[in-house]
Amino acid sequence: MKREEPLFDVAQLAHLEIYSPKIEESVAFFREILGMSVAAREGKSVYMRAYEDHYHNTLKITDHHEAGLGHLSLRATSPNALERRVKELEEKGYGIGWIDGDVGHGPAYQFKSPDGHLMEIFYEVEYFEAPEEEKTKLLNRPQRRPNIGVPVRRLDHINLLSSNPRETVEFLEALLGFKVNERILDEDNNDIAAWTSVTNLAHDIAVMGDALGEKGRLHHICYWYGYPQSLTDVSDLLIERGFEIEAGPLKHGVSQASCLYVCEPGGNRVELFGDAGYLIFDPDWKTVEWKGEDLQKAIIWQGAAELPADFFRYGTPVREEKVPAIAGQAPIEEETEDVRSVTVEESKEQAKV
Amino acid sequence: MKREEPLFDVAQLAHLEIYSPKIEESVAFFREILGMSVAAREGKSVYMRAYEDHYHNTLKITDHHEAGLGHLSLRATSPNALERRVKELEEKGYGIGWIDGDVGHGPAYQFKSPDGHLMEIFYEVEYFEAPEEEKTKLLNRPQRRPNIGVPVRRLDHINLLSSNPRETVEFLEALLGFKVNERILDEDNNDIAAWTSVTNLAHDIAVMGDALGEKGRLHHICYWYGYPQSLTDVSDLLIERGFEIEAGPLKHGVSQASCLYVCEPGGNRVELFGDAGYLIFDPDWKTVEWKGEDLQKAIIWQGAAELPADFFRYGTPVREEKVPAIAGQAPIEEETEDVRSVTVEESKEQAKV
Amino acid sequence: MKREEPLFDVAQLAHLEIYSPKIEESVAFFREILGMSVAAREGKSVYMRAYEDHYHNTLKITDHHEAGLGHLSLRATSPNALERRVKELEEKGYGIGWIDGDVGHGPAYQFKSPDGHLMEIFYEVEYFEAPEEEKTKLLNRPQRRPNIGVPVRRLDHINLLSSNPRETVEFLEALLGFKVNERILDEDNNDIAAWTSVTNLAHDIAVMGDALGEKGRLHHICYWYGYPQSLTDVSDLLIERGFEIEAGPLKHGVSQASCLYVCEPGGNRVELFGDAGYLIFDPDWKTVEWKGEDLQKAIIWQGAAELPADFFRYGTPVREEKVPAIAGQAPIEEETEDVRSVTVEESKEQAKV
Amino acid sequence: MKREEPLFDVAQLAHLEIYSPKIEESVAFFREILGMSVAAREGKSVYMRAYEDHYHNTLKITDHHEAGLGHLSLRATSPNALERRVKELEEKGYGIGWIDGDVGHGPAYQFKSPDGHLMEIFYEVEYFEAPEEEKTKLLNRPQRRPNIGVPVRRLDHINLLSSNPRETVEFLEALLGFKVNERILDEDNNDIAAWTSVTNLAHDIAVMGDALGEKGRLHHICYWYGYPQSLTDVSDLLIERGFEIEAGPLKHGVSQASCLYVCEPGGNRVELFGDAGYLIFDPDWKTVEWKGEDLQKAIIWQGAAELPADFFRYGTPVREEKVPAIAGQAPIEEETEDVRSVTVEESKEQAKV
Repeated sequence: MKREEPLFDVAQLAHLEIYSPKIEESVAFFREILGMSVAAREGKSVYMRAYEDHYHNTLKITDHHEAGLGHLSLRATSPNALERRVKELEEKGYGIGWIDGDVGHGPAYQFKSPDGHLMEIFYEVEYFEAPEEEKTKLLNRPQRRPNIGVPVRRLDHINLLSSNPRETVEFLEALLGFKVNERILDEDNNDIAAWTSVTNLAHDIAVMGDALGEKGRLHHICYWYGYPQSLTDVSDLLIERGFEIEAGPLKHGVSQASCLYVCEPGGNRVELFGDAGYLIFDPDWKTVEWKGEDLQKAIIWQGAAELPADFFRYGTPVREEKVPAIAGQAPIEEETEDVRSVTVEESKEQAKV
Repeated sequence: MKREEPLFDVAQLAHLEIYSPKIEESVAFFREILGMSVAAREGKSVYMRAYEDHYHNTLKITDHHEAGLGHLSLRATSPNALERRVKELEEKGYGIGWIDGDVGHGPAYQFKSPDGHLMEIFYEVEYFEAPEEEKTKLLNRPQRRPNIGVPVRRLDHINLLSSNPRETVEFLEALLGFKVNERILDEDNNDIAAWTSVTNLAHDIAVMGDALGEKGRLHHICYWYGYPQSLTDVSDLLIERGFEIEAGPLKHGVSQASCLYVCEPGGNRVELFGDAGYLIFDPDWKTVEWKGEDLQKAIIWQGAAELPADFFRYGTPVREEKVPAIAGQAPIEEETEDVRSVTVEESKEQAKV
Repeated sequence: MKREEPLFDVAQLAHLEIYSPKIEESVAFFREILGMSVAAREGKSVYMRAYEDHYHNTLKITDHHEAGLGHLSLRATSPNALERRVKELEEKGYGIGWIDGDVGHGPAYQFKSPDGHLMEIFYEVEYFEAPEEEKTKLLNRPQRRPNIGVPVRRLDHINLLSSNPRETVEFLEALLGFKVNERILDEDNNDIAAWTSVTNLAHDIAVMGDALGEKGRLHHICYWYGYPQSLTDVSDLLIERGFEIEAGPLKHGVSQASCLYVCEPGGNRVELFGDAGYLIFDPDWKTVEWKGEDLQKAIIWQGAAELPADFFRYGTPVREEKVPAIAGQAPIEEETEDVRSVTVEESKEQAKV
Repeated sequence: MKREEPLFDVAQLAHLEIYSPKIEESVAFFREILGMSVAAREGKSVYMRAYEDHYHNTLKITDHHEAGLGHLSLRATSPNALERRVKELEEKGYGIGWIDGDVGHGPAYQFKSPDGHLMEIFYEVEYFEAPEEEKTKLLNRPQRRPNIGVPVRRLDHINLLSSNPRETVEFLEALLGFKVNERILDEDNNDIAAWTSVTNLAHDIAVMGDALGEKGRLHHICYWYGYPQSLTDVSDLLIERGFEIEAGPLKHGVSQASCLYVCEPGGNRVELFGDAGYLIFDPDWKTVEWKGEDLQKAIIWQGAAELPADFFRYGTPVREEKVPAIAGQAPIEEETEDVRSVTVEESKEQAKV
């Protein structure tokens, strides 16, 4: 269901909140490997940003008993645009209500996707002001390049798992003006996954079907380099410090992304985006549909034979014990009987196999 | 003069027309060095595109007695948006009138910038359909990568010379919704140059003051690679085939572009953009202003000491005989008396010195 | 068995001969995809070179009923060095005898490795002289960069399959002065594979155990780019022209090579080497030994989970019908009974699965 | 004067000693920007290495009242080779005598080039042993990639200034077996500069004429990345930390090096080598000669118009007061009268203009 006229009320994915059961290790990962800096600490949360993020922060990590998505936050294109979106979200029954704001931004309206992902939209934002010693003469860059890790440049996108990806995508289209740029379909033309954006990126928010049938989970968050070599460099850092790279460096067909995937210590999957992929300027872009025999190229265009099975079932919060039959096998009974939550550590260990 | 509310009626820079006094040599340059293909030939024009351009064509080269800009063409975000822009352009007295369309697109409304650059806006577009043998399994790419030259991927931007850059930029802002992302100012805060966009790029249209005081000239057009290595590769092709690279590979501060500049055989300057620069998602981006001692870093961030003097005075059509005093010398009288046009070949030869 | 004193009689791997049952398609592959040029045609052979190969040719492709290694050719460091090597090869019983030379080089002494690989050593060589229009001002490059394919720069190395890798390696060490730079060992410290060189490269000749127990087969030949981006570029060309990339772009632990593998149309595996790997200047380099749990990193350092099974059993000439039990299955009887040679086409099809 | 038979007694440039009047700032530069580590401190010296240097150290920085070359150190290919070289150096009158060794290597024989550069040759070397936490599973790498700066991988080469470059080069050829791979000649075929090696590199030792006519000075030392992107990355670090990049990233014609030049805080010029350049395997390589109109391409193949004038006159120890007339101006009298040594800081300030 597309709008009749294009909607320009949402400008961008502005920041993300993830939960971590190992918050200090998570912060250390983003700081030491990805070169991000701590913008603030408040309550149970640490606020971070990449060196070309212009806002006060783009990542909020909150101490929690399990990993997962806290919320995703969108910035409206204007105060009026914010008002229009809030009105419509309220009318259609997705709304939760206003919060006063958070570290780095003003009043925000909270709402939930049909699958239960917590989202918010706001307009007033606080810009990062570099301390004198971090300033750069490259005036379009808010601070100089950090001298640790292989520093990511900016927030890129988020990938959500959904029990009903089509419903989630239609919500993004209808209520928020996201365009569906690429889509993977099964044989019956059901959505397996979709890549949507309000910007010229091939995706700001991707939605993938949750193989476990869970609601509201997170597949991954993504930060951006813009240079494929950075993936080679950071891979060395990761491998030599004991992190298991789940997949990549490789190049997806979808979005033409050069990328790699790794779990941060809290258990959330992080993608690092190496090049520029491709950009979409066409206001009437016809959704690229991948299905059947084209599917393999959608997933891997270059660089690996295939993605590991876990890539399609691991998400946060971790619900590994509900893994259904894989590759034609019946569900293993012992596992489905045991309903305890697998701890993040355990699940991450499994994901590493 | 900014609009009160952001304007989203213009989606993108859709295609360009350049004039060439050596049309077949120009076509050969874009085809053999930049890997572009000929989409059509009609009348005095050849229509070309890069392999990731989705429309029928993005470059029209028209046989003409001298080099220069034919026109630049913008695509509206919707039929209604087109109507709104036409109405306002007409009302404000910039309009020329409708044309039936051209090879690759439908009806277009022509108008002129205050400095006399011919522009048009349209909505209906024809998409490129690859012949069977050129199709690719990378479904978001309209055809496979060509096997000649170091092929550019898509049209990126245009840079106009203007006798009054501030006036031209204010026109783009007020009438078409371009945002001014970066700006170079002189000591009295007059615009020397500005980088504007309707997309997330740092610039779709740049405007630079014409050192010769001419109206309506072209500084350069730009195609995009997305990979710095491509600049190294194409430099070899260019140098070893006798093309003089005017500047680069280097990295500008403005727009963070890795790029190089070379004149195509018709005399028009072409920029090749190597990486992704940086993207702007902030709907309220505060124009980056470069002036005084910051200026040098605006022009060169990495890779060369400075740009050649010609970079700041050479444009098309060529008007070299009006070059004012350079480096403290008085204007040479013989030249100012001789008012004939320097031929493109002569001027290009000069530009190569 | 190492020599007491280092031996410097062999300077380099100078050229290779491969057999092809589809010679014109093989030539087209090396010319159109890898940008190599035809230096000569004589008898049943076509002689080719890469644009930074300084000699007349580095690859001889000979029409033959099946793919495989023709011979590998070494250049001695001096006429005296040639004489010393010939004398010792003769004395130890490996010699075959002198030939008058071939297109591009003078008299050569032929001999066989213990596993039956045909080799030769020579000193007098003919240099490539570029025709006027192919000359470059980059005087250390013998011709300008070709404008087709993603052109490889020079011959890099060869990888031989051997029924007895240790014996083959000891031959290279003792008779020719190759150093064993890296080695993969099984649990009983038997050689699975070894990487040897007379240059500062990590390998000029690699030797891998033949999983089929065959003698004298070829695993792959390798040409060099020096830039990882070239692998991305050529992957597009390959994939979009219907070639199946067997593995990569990826980064091996062994030799730190960024590379990819693809079969040329004749069936011989070709490696393309993207970066510089690492170089060895230490005259007393201690062989790097990979075994047990380190093995996986030897094979894949970055970029893929693992190599396909065929990587370890496919070689030329193709002897697929002798493939022993794979993945725990018993040998298939029908196949072992049928002793006809699988055609190259069939085997390549199999290799592509 | 070439030897009749190639000489293989010298294996490599093993390490360098530079003098610094600001030793701790020099150490900080190599550690924080280039990611090198301190291997030892002893007496007035600090010993450092890059993370892919296999020996105990490759750079000795010694506290001294002015910058310059301490010595350069060559490793022989064997104990016998060492003995042969010492014998010949002694006989020809270049010898100084044996030292017991230094941190990281055994007994070394000291000698001087005809221009007075202190050199040594040795065989016994100490290998770096990484502490447990720095070990890597990439077994051909002696330690994991450091997590600071943009870490260089290994020592590459040294470039000496000489009052008589031909004499210095002939010494390297005749006494030590260096091959002259490339050479720049003036109109009378006098050597302006030469690039020589005992390895497959295009140069281990380069020699350039000293524009000031001084003896025994250093032009630069060079460490290696192998990836052009690393130059972009480290440029950001340098520029944003107040270091002035003297030239680059650019690509020389000579050696095909992608590189940049920067002075370390002690005043010595450091080159960073981005890619692999090209390698020479031909044992009878014909020296590439650049002169006349080819000269410009020798110096700059890609990326800048020209090198700054200082590149051709600045060396260490600094003797700026002897700079002759520049750009047609007569020597400034006040300066020529004042014969005091310009301090390194002053000269570096000047070099930065």
